[in-house]
Amino acid sequence: MPEQTTGASRPTLEAVAARAGVSRATASRVVNGGVGVRAPLVDKVRQAVEELGYVPNHAARTLVTRRSGAVAVIIAEPEFRIFSDPFFEQQVRGISRELTAHDSQLVLLWVEGPGDHDRIARYLGGGHVDGTLAFSLHNDDELPALIARARIPTVFGGRSEAGQRLAVPYVDSDNRGGAREAVRHLVSLGRRHIAHIAGPRDLMAALDRVDGYHDVMMDADPALMSQGDFTEESGARAMAELLDRRPDLDAVFVANDLMASGALRTLRERGVRVPEDVAVVGFDDLASVVRSTDPALTTVHQDIEGTGRLMVKLLMRLLDGTGGPVPASVITPTALVRRASA
Amino acid sequence: MPEQTTGASRPTLEAVAARAGVSRATASRVVNGGVGVRAPLVDKVRQAVEELGYVPNHAARTLVTRRSGAVAVIIAEPEFRIFSDPFFEQQVRGISRELTAHDSQLVLLWVEGPGDHDRIARYLGGGHVDGTLAFSLHNDDELPALIARARIPTVFGGRSEAGQRLAVPYVDSDNRGGAREAVRHLVSLGRRHIAHIAGPRDLMAALDRVDGYHDVMMDADPALMSQGDFTEESGARAMAELLDRRPDLDAVFVANDLMASGALRTLRERGVRVPEDVAVVGFDDLASVVRSTDPALTTVHQDIEGTGRLMVKLLMRLLDGTGGPVPASVITPTALVRRASA
Repeated sequence: MPEQTTGASRPTLEAVAARAGVSRATASRVVNGGVGVRAPLVDKVRQAVEELGYVPNHAARTLVTRRSGAVAVIIAEPEFRIFSDPFFEQQVRGISRELTAHDSQLVLLWVEGPGDHDRIARYLGGGHVDGTLAFSLHNDDELPALIARARIPTVFGGRSEAGQRLAVPYVDSDNRGGAREAVRHLVSLGRRHIAHIAGPRDLMAALDRVDGYHDVMMDADPALMSQGDFTEESGARAMAELLDRRPDLDAVFVANDLMASGALRTLRERGVRVPEDVAVVGFDDLASVVRSTDPALTTVHQDIEGTGRLMVKLLMRLLDGTGGPVPASVITPTALVRRASA
Repeated sequence: MPEQTTGASRPTLEAVAARAGVSRATASRVVNGGVGVRAPLVDKVRQAVEELGYVPNHAARTLVTRRSGAVAVIIAEPEFRIFSDPFFEQQVRGISRELTAHDSQLVLLWVEGPGDHDRIARYLGGGHVDGTLAFSLHNDDELPALIARARIPTVFGGRSEAGQRLAVPYVDSDNRGGAREAVRHLVSLGRRHIAHIAGPRDLMAALDRVDGYHDVMMDADPALMSQGDFTEESGARAMAELLDRRPDLDAVFVANDLMASGALRTLRERGVRVPEDVAVVGFDDLASVVRSTDPALTTVHQDIEGTGRLMVKLLMRLLDGTGGPVPASVITPTALVRRASA
């Protein structure tokens, strides 16, 4: 491959087209993948590209337009969580569909641990993506600051301490309001000893749901609070702890559906009837989970796919500079969905 | 942001360091994310970057080194398949760990349909990744050719018609040998009417397993062959068809574990005992599937994570030009794992 030339002497696509004896449009198609161009023409253009040392890539274009046509989606969770929690699939699905509608290429990245941060920062600083969408950001994490420092248009999914400090726009569900509605529903059923299984302490979405619980259960016994990490297994464990501490509990609001599924398993194993003895409400309304629980799970619906789409729409406004100013945050409503478990 | 300058007048990192009054190393760290640099120095370097119009990105660097530090992993399946089949998680896990060991950033792409091809070709042609790993490539698909046309180092996961035609190195399991061993095991148990539930007709891995089945069952009744698409649901349906056509069947070799799980469900619903009435063997040995089936699934183990790691190792040899010539293909062995279902 010939040495790359730079600056004024860098050959243009027009020069390539002229040497190959094809139109600029044909040369462009070949340079961009060659789809739909007849093989002899592809060969001619390729030969011209090599002879002239044309840089047939977006790196050169990025220097001019600063556009790569790609958007990075960063999930601040390890790979096993991403593939096991349907929440992420739904969020990514919404983002993927909306990016496709904008002809942007989604590239998915995730974070096994802090050891990945430097590499991700280099990648984001490298001009390979036009923007970043990041979610599941944890409060004690340097990742949000690294992303913000890359100085490319960014939208966060979910409120985070760092995101607010760095003034990165975010989309979130009304976690606190949804939690409040869930607990009020349990109160309206006549339940009095209502427990809560909380999500990770470093995720604002989880903390907001704890706040919503306390909005209604102002004087709740701390023994009614239990801690999980949003995995099914942690929900099963937290439920066991609660039953050991407060065997008189008659309801539990669980901070996500996966943990609620684990909690239902523990209740079944202990011979506790749902909802007769203990009513259970989850959060998320993940079709694949609420369909498979027994009894069917009453839960707080949030529009996960819609949140993903909204993140893309805000990002596109940042990228295009059209559609008016981007709000600091957009909060989407939640709604209680009543099924058999409460 | 100032206009980008190009060519000879493009400011260097050294110029940025000089103006900021810091070392080149410090300037480099700031430009690459700023990790571990004190805030006042970060600010000084940023100011110098803006004043000089320095292009703080890999796009410029790519023109020189042609390295982005990133590798694209392309799964030629829609997002719902990727998130629902643990096979992909394991493959991606192996790739992710090995890329991390090489300090390469994994960016995951997938393909909802042919409408995505042009965009992916543009992205790959754009110099944003140093190499490509692609798997689940279908025979009737133009994607392998598009990937090969991007002319960046590429390794395929799994044999494919296009990959062989284009001479792209690939890593694959011994699908045919594994299938043969599975069917021979059923024969050794005294089973005579051994059916096969095949995977997608356009995937060589599935076709190779059909060939392995026929290596042993040379005169098999075509009514003993049934077609699935590697999803659990398709396995359940295919099993029902087989039972309707050949109620006397006494064994079934299923081309992957997910379909085997579906087949076991159908057998249970029809009151057919496994393995007493019908013995079942799967393919993959996916921990999350074989653990949850009842009875536990006898299956053909393939080292999915190891295959992913191997793909990265071959790619790194292509990228570095070290480690000797890259073989056209590497076939990894399979092994029958006997559990209760056969």
